Amino acid sequence: MDVARLVELNAAYARAIDNEQFEAWPELFADPCLYKVTTADNLARGMEAGIIYADSRGMLRDRVSALRKANIYERQRYRHIVGLPVVLGRENGAASVETPFLIVRIMRDGTMEVFATGRYLDRVADESGALKFHERVVACDGGRFDTLVAIPF
Amino acid sequence: MDVARLVELNAAYARAIDNEQFEAWPELFADPCLYKVTTADNLARGMEAGIIYADSRGMLRDRVSALRKANIYERQRYRHIVGLPVVLGRENGAASVETPFLIVRIMRDGTMEVFATGRYLDRVADESGALKFHERVVACDGGRFDTLVAIPF
Amino acid sequence: MDVARLVELNAAYARAIDNEQFEAWPELFADPCLYKVTTADNLARGMEAGIIYADSRGMLRDRVSALRKANIYERQRYRHIVGLPVVLGRENGAASVETPFLIVRIMRDGTMEVFATGRYLDRVADESGALKFHERVVACDGGRFDTLVAIPF
Repeated sequence: MDVARLVELNAAYARAIDNEQFEAWPELFADPCLYKVTTADNLARGMEAGIIYADSRGMLRDRVSALRKANIYERQRYRHIVGLPVVLGRENGAASVETPFLIVRIMRDGTMEVFATGRYLDRVADESGALKFHERVVACDGGRFDTLVAIPF
Repeated sequence: MDVARLVELNAAYARAIDNEQFEAWPELFADPCLYKVTTADNLARGMEAGIIYADSRGMLRDRVSALRKANIYERQRYRHIVGLPVVLGRENGAASVETPFLIVRIMRDGTMEVFATGRYLDRVADESGALKFHERVVACDGGRFDTLVAIPF
Repeated sequence: MDVARLVELNAAYARAIDNEQFEAWPELFADPCLYKVTTADNLARGMEAGIIYADSRGMLRDRVSALRKANIYERQRYRHIVGLPVVLGRENGAASVETPFLIVRIMRDGTMEVFATGRYLDRVADESGALKFHERVVACDGGRFDTLVAIPF
């Protein structure tokens, strides 16, 4: 699994969210899968609980449906800047990858702020020619999470 | 056209602007070309007008001359962080590419702020061995544009 | 030296600092080496002095030891987003490379701010199969440097 393909997968992930093509987002995961948003502190303390948790593509799709109904996303826009992936190891055809990210939130009045930074801790494998996330644990550096966190990280 | 060459083109683009080597910037475009700075909202509404518009290398060079005469750029510095490109398709030897960006503005007193985020919507083709922008539409997420916008995005 | 390997080196560099695995940081440099943190303004004026300076792996290790003793890093966290590298030239087996960066600082209360932006001016060469920094000059765009600057840039 070369870095170019990981870059492609990460670019598609960020694009689905930032372009509000949310329906494309669950399709980047394997089924079953693990998707969790947590903080670096929680992770360091071995705390299992996350702010967001899903273990199947169906659960991810449910999140998208809820998001569409709530229309929350219309109040702001997000921009993911995904950094350079580090491949940490390979096991049983899956690669363990760590990738830093930065998310900027843009309010409808044009105000921008750094919304979140952190790293993606992934297990990625090839599935019929396409890379899929078997695991994506989103470890956020900061701890400010409000109830608006309905958009995937 | 592989991703490595797109990365190279984008890196050269950002470097020309951030290092204030503005004269190198028009040379990255084909002639004629389309260069437009607009907002995601305008784009979604099908509005053609942009904040900045140029359709030839000559027009781009004129912008650079104007910028040099005004010396506006001396009041601040910019830093582009260009994200991962997504190749959307290929047609007649040109690739359609979407690439996210983040621009930080650094004032002379050292104050920094997120100045703009958005995505580059490009049509890129090879011209005698070098990639050139046939089109670069800069779709900004936010809407705060002051008159200082003389620097290329 | 292809771009993929430079990307890997930069990713490992950012990861060592952001994950607070500081001991891995000096190992990415050749010995002797040049590591200097300065500003774009100082650099443009030809000023040799830097905010941080080291010319051997031993000096880099000393910085890490001091950092560990001071525990300063526990008050905040950093997140490096490293941009796309531009290879400027090659000489005697070493490549000259320029790479933009953005560093976000995350305080323990979750507050985030753009801490620094700038570019890495590197001389990189292969050493028994691994790329090493022979030189890394960190040219910061801004000028706000407080005494907390003990963490590598």
